[in-house]
Amino acid sequence: MSLPNLFASRISGMKASEIRELLKLLDQPDIISFAGGIPDPALFPVDAFQAAMAKALGGGNHALSLQYSASEGYLPLRQWIVGEMAKLGVPCEAGNILITSGSQQALDYLGKLFLSPGDTALVGWPTYLGALGAFNAYEPRYDRLQPGGNRSVQDYAAAAAPGRVKFAYLSVDFANPTGVTLSQTEREQVLDLAEGLDCAVIEDAAYQSLRYDGASIPPILALEVARKGDINACRTIYCGSFSKTLSPGLRIGWVCAAKSVVNQMVLLKQAGDLHTATLNQMAIAEVANGDFDEHLEKLRGLYRSRRDRMLAALETHMPAGVEWTKPEGGMFVWVTLPKGMDGAKLLEQALKTEKVAFVPGGAFFADGSGANTLRLNFSSPSQQAIDEGIARLGRVLTAALVPG
Amino acid sequence: MSLPNLFASRISGMKASEIRELLKLLDQPDIISFAGGIPDPALFPVDAFQAAMAKALGGGNHALSLQYSASEGYLPLRQWIVGEMAKLGVPCEAGNILITSGSQQALDYLGKLFLSPGDTALVGWPTYLGALGAFNAYEPRYDRLQPGGNRSVQDYAAAAAPGRVKFAYLSVDFANPTGVTLSQTEREQVLDLAEGLDCAVIEDAAYQSLRYDGASIPPILALEVARKGDINACRTIYCGSFSKTLSPGLRIGWVCAAKSVVNQMVLLKQAGDLHTATLNQMAIAEVANGDFDEHLEKLRGLYRSRRDRMLAALETHMPAGVEWTKPEGGMFVWVTLPKGMDGAKLLEQALKTEKVAFVPGGAFFADGSGANTLRLNFSSPSQQAIDEGIARLGRVLTAALVPG
Repeated sequence: MSLPNLFASRISGMKASEIRELLKLLDQPDIISFAGGIPDPALFPVDAFQAAMAKALGGGNHALSLQYSASEGYLPLRQWIVGEMAKLGVPCEAGNILITSGSQQALDYLGKLFLSPGDTALVGWPTYLGALGAFNAYEPRYDRLQPGGNRSVQDYAAAAAPGRVKFAYLSVDFANPTGVTLSQTEREQVLDLAEGLDCAVIEDAAYQSLRYDGASIPPILALEVARKGDINACRTIYCGSFSKTLSPGLRIGWVCAAKSVVNQMVLLKQAGDLHTATLNQMAIAEVANGDFDEHLEKLRGLYRSRRDRMLAALETHMPAGVEWTKPEGGMFVWVTLPKGMDGAKLLEQALKTEKVAFVPGGAFFADGSGANTLRLNFSSPSQQAIDEGIARLGRVLTAALVPG
Repeated sequence: MSLPNLFASRISGMKASEIRELLKLLDQPDIISFAGGIPDPALFPVDAFQAAMAKALGGGNHALSLQYSASEGYLPLRQWIVGEMAKLGVPCEAGNILITSGSQQALDYLGKLFLSPGDTALVGWPTYLGALGAFNAYEPRYDRLQPGGNRSVQDYAAAAAPGRVKFAYLSVDFANPTGVTLSQTEREQVLDLAEGLDCAVIEDAAYQSLRYDGASIPPILALEVARKGDINACRTIYCGSFSKTLSPGLRIGWVCAAKSVVNQMVLLKQAGDLHTATLNQMAIAEVANGDFDEHLEKLRGLYRSRRDRMLAALETHMPAGVEWTKPEGGMFVWVTLPKGMDGAKLLEQALKTEKVAFVPGGAFFADGSGANTLRLNFSSPSQQAIDEGIARLGRVLTAALVPG
């Protein structure tokens, strides 16, 4: 008897995430880790959550907060999100908002909603590893999304045949893993491509609030609403999250999209886990309605200083031939090594000789390329750890680059 | 542009749950509803949760409780569950336990794990509506599971051809919707059938703790461990839940199974929503480690009295020709009307003339039969509401049964 023999065919494409495995390294105090993608817990608004939880459980509110609730999500939280989306240039109603258990769940449900085996998902080379993990369950093919590239709509369509392109997935602001932000022109180009292919756009906005300098650029959904005048006529599906701003452990994210999409996703949510924890939604709504902007300023201030420190340390310690991005926000710097180098082998070396960790970039590429890249996180480590860790990384790379 | 044209084929099988729609009726105070399946919020251990939340957020614990955590779940909670499973006759380790966001999520992930389109799931006629909802996303066929029935293993296998039977799904104690409990002999028969078909058994134990009288019968997983000596050699996958005992709104359930199954489900969880909310797991672990048995006794006491009251009221008010189950636990009584009667039409009538609600039974049948059945919930309404509501239902049925 072996149950794995009974597993569905989709399971063969689902592997362990290297990043999740690496997270275990964070527990070893002598390792300096740039491998995580997690917020600094010192920035969690703990007092506000203490008060919010006490309120949501007190005064008879437990009859709501501990009980089953609607699959759509807690209405006051959805209404708060409606207000935030309006500030981003997306007028909408609560009926356009579904609460999910983190934006990871939104990606899973969107894969489930759109992808039949053999359909194509357009993604960046590289792209968010968790998106590939979520979509893989629905057995898609991947093609490379290149906004402003020289492939025509017909080229993309032909590459997807006999299946079709169901959506383009991307993160436009300080993307995980690259830290790169798309220009407004590139965002419009993504929309044009999606119009030509008649496919959806999944806009992952997990890092949207974490801009440290430069001017904000409207989300793709806002650009599409500006074109069409009504969110319910839009093909862009915006996935937001409180994981980077308030707390990832409470698992609260949202989808903002046309009602035809949200209504169907509510059914997926109902079938998938009934609803996201009621208490968590109430607590997030309470804290978000408090000093949210002030909290964000504090968060941006600390992360900005860490990003600056990491960029300065990279200037100091990286040997010639190594390049990296200069993100305007988010949590990551993306490093490109000379061709032929292998990030996975370097990690082994780095852990052994210098006790410094990062994520080898290859896992972020749907085509298996990108071996000569790494992702560095600057949101978790302290400034001293950044200085020391990048110095260690510099020694590892310098040694690896010595000819012979 | 119409995004629904892009939806995957699996979406066509996913419809709104009648029960979830009916839950909205609970908000109207003049309706007596037996339609829900929800615990009485007066029984939530609010003070214990207040203290547990304060502890999980205080003293620096927020760095854990509000942060990302492992997909497997919070280890102290998994260890507590290991202890509970041992009491049920299932010796196991934390590696056999995965925490899910309610047992509904376990059903979704199990569908995802096993079902390719056209595979067969064996279910009861009727069965838990939420299981059909979860499995439907993976486009199975359904066949009727009849423990002790006269169909042979070959009959089941032939009916599934050219696909195969992947699992038998059932709830053995006070099942939703029937309230019926399987005898030990029937449980062994399910195991024998699964052995013959070489398929998995999904044992939904959501109501397991809610026994009001009669002797406990070992779960199927315990019977299989007794046969094989090792949980890792077992084909039974046990799905537990805190929704009926502590709080449904916190969305905490678990899977207990062979490591080969749990390890793969951890990957589905990672791809699906990363992990269940950390704070919620810590709070449940804290409360479960408190006066859990005492709490259960209180819960059983109240629900027992409501069940007794409902059975008495049914004796008093049901017209001849109407039959119902006498559950030893759980939350539901199942009513069978004379053939030809239609529960859905009766509900319309009942809401209009008597303002009493129930769930028409047809939705619980994968083959669309069962129109002459209804499900009544006794865990939510007060004793007075039960008396009055069943009297109203009696008038509706009496009127409907008048030849005419």
